[in-house]
Amino acid sequence: MRRFSDVMASFISQRQFAIEWGHCDPAGIVFNGRFFEFFDWGTWWLFEAALGVPARDLVGAFGIIGIPLVDARARFLAPARFGDVVELTSQIREFRRSSFDVEHRLMVRGELAVEGRETRVWALRDAADSSVIRSEPIPDEVIARFQVP
Amino acid sequence: MRRFSDVMASFISQRQFAIEWGHCDPAGIVFNGRFFEFFDWGTWWLFEAALGVPARDLVGAFGIIGIPLVDARARFLAPARFGDVVELTSQIREFRRSSFDVEHRLMVRGELAVEGRETRVWALRDAADSSVIRSEPIPDEVIARFQVP
Amino acid sequence: MRRFSDVMASFISQRQFAIEWGHCDPAGIVFNGRFFEFFDWGTWWLFEAALGVPARDLVGAFGIIGIPLVDARARFLAPARFGDVVELTSQIREFRRSSFDVEHRLMVRGELAVEGRETRVWALRDAADSSVIRSEPIPDEVIARFQVP
Amino acid sequence: MRRFSDVMASFISQRQFAIEWGHCDPAGIVFNGRFFEFFDWGTWWLFEAALGVPARDLVGAFGIIGIPLVDARARFLAPARFGDVVELTSQIREFRRSSFDVEHRLMVRGELAVEGRETRVWALRDAADSSVIRSEPIPDEVIARFQVP
Repeated sequence: MRRFSDVMASFISQRQFAIEWGHCDPAGIVFNGRFFEFFDWGTWWLFEAALGVPARDLVGAFGIIGIPLVDARARFLAPARFGDVVELTSQIREFRRSSFDVEHRLMVRGELAVEGRETRVWALRDAADSSVIRSEPIPDEVIARFQVP
Repeated sequence: MRRFSDVMASFISQRQFAIEWGHCDPAGIVFNGRFFEFFDWGTWWLFEAALGVPARDLVGAFGIIGIPLVDARARFLAPARFGDVVELTSQIREFRRSSFDVEHRLMVRGELAVEGRETRVWALRDAADSSVIRSEPIPDEVIARFQVP
Repeated sequence: MRRFSDVMASFISQRQFAIEWGHCDPAGIVFNGRFFEFFDWGTWWLFEAALGVPARDLVGAFGIIGIPLVDARARFLAPARFGDVVELTSQIREFRRSSFDVEHRLMVRGELAVEGRETRVWALRDAADSSVIRSEPIPDEVIARFQVP
Repeated sequence: MRRFSDVMASFISQRQFAIEWGHCDPAGIVFNGRFFEFFDWGTWWLFEAALGVPARDLVGAFGIIGIPLVDARARFLAPARFGDVVELTSQIREFRRSSFDVEHRLMVRGELAVEGRETRVWALRDAADSSVIRSEPIPDEVIARFQVP
């Protein structure tokens, strides 16, 4: 198991964006499903930054159909509201053979508001049956790009 | 700690609905954030069924601002696709003083596709400062309604 | 131009569903983008009902990539709120060579709340360049199925 | 009727953002309801820029419950795909007594991809019955801020 995060620095994606009216529910705070959408943004931003290619081209270049989730979790510590400028920090916590963990931290006004973790797989469409999606080993060249010298 | 689920049956909400085009992403499967939206539906359906009042009136009747999440988790075991008719089963797993756990199981074609768990709080707007949302003890009458004799 | 709606009855899709918490914004009413999502549901429901096949199979059977919008419009006459049970009525207003108009009417508590119209095209992926999506003549057998004898 | 746009320049909001994976449908292009969500962003960005205050404070400062839509329309001229960086330009086309029109233009790769128009009202919660939302005259000071000298 390659837990490179224990032994070397890993790429970090860090971006700010604003909470919009349509992100919020009748309680005036971000609807929970939206945070998982934000995490999805964060994971793609991270892959773009680490691999140096647009996320769209990544899909084409490696023949993957995407990087679907097998597990997702979030702890909601403080609400985010319309107009808040939030900062999302995303990084890989562990690469395994064909799956990996991404950690997300969403800060609001300098405070940790939401903490998330996704487990995703490197997924291809089966050559024999295109209706089947299956996981494949993550190429070494992909993993190497997440390591900061 | 009131773990009534260990000692008696608890209300179950079970509903079927179809996966729509707009629920799905470029991989042709339901976008992950949508499952958390479905879980939210399931929790409100459960409260409606158990309390016998429309969810909207529940908010008014008890003065709550909602039942916001403090933790959510999902395991994605099989994809759901456009046109699939899925069945969502939701039930309370534990009531604590001011929070509770809801378990969700989403079946696709007779197979468990997504398993989720939410922890939510019984939340009111603070009387002194309406910008503050805080948790309150869940009324006994609410908890009693989830128990199946 | 085949304006069959002027000369004969056309299939109607009519379904009821509930407005969920996550559909609503901080004003406590359905967020506008959601109505266009509802219209999309209505159009697929209509095609399913008229063609007698699941929408998913429709895509496969006719080799289309979907029925993308080229124009959409809505008038919002009354708000829909969390817990409202709404009724969506959808029907084709006109078939043209490769495009068609769908009219949607969303009723809330017996009152017309939202009126919408979509113009969509029958779209295929170009055989020569799969990144290109282009419109094609709608098969006569498809149009015929929308006519009520 | 104050059609100031005919006689003087009006504020313009212009912002770039990326199309994310979760914005797209199984055809690999942005799901139509999302464009109306983008228009909503554009209108709030415009109000923020013109009024010089955060959108959230605008709601509080003027006692409005929001600026709900009464009419929305979009023409879809070219698809936007995952990874596209789009530019959204929004401006007021007309202020009337209690309603106004916002025009949106979404450019993809230098090409007009979506053209939209919203009609919105300046809305308050009725003092006598808080469940009622009604339109009110738009304050002159608000309108004045959209005029570019």
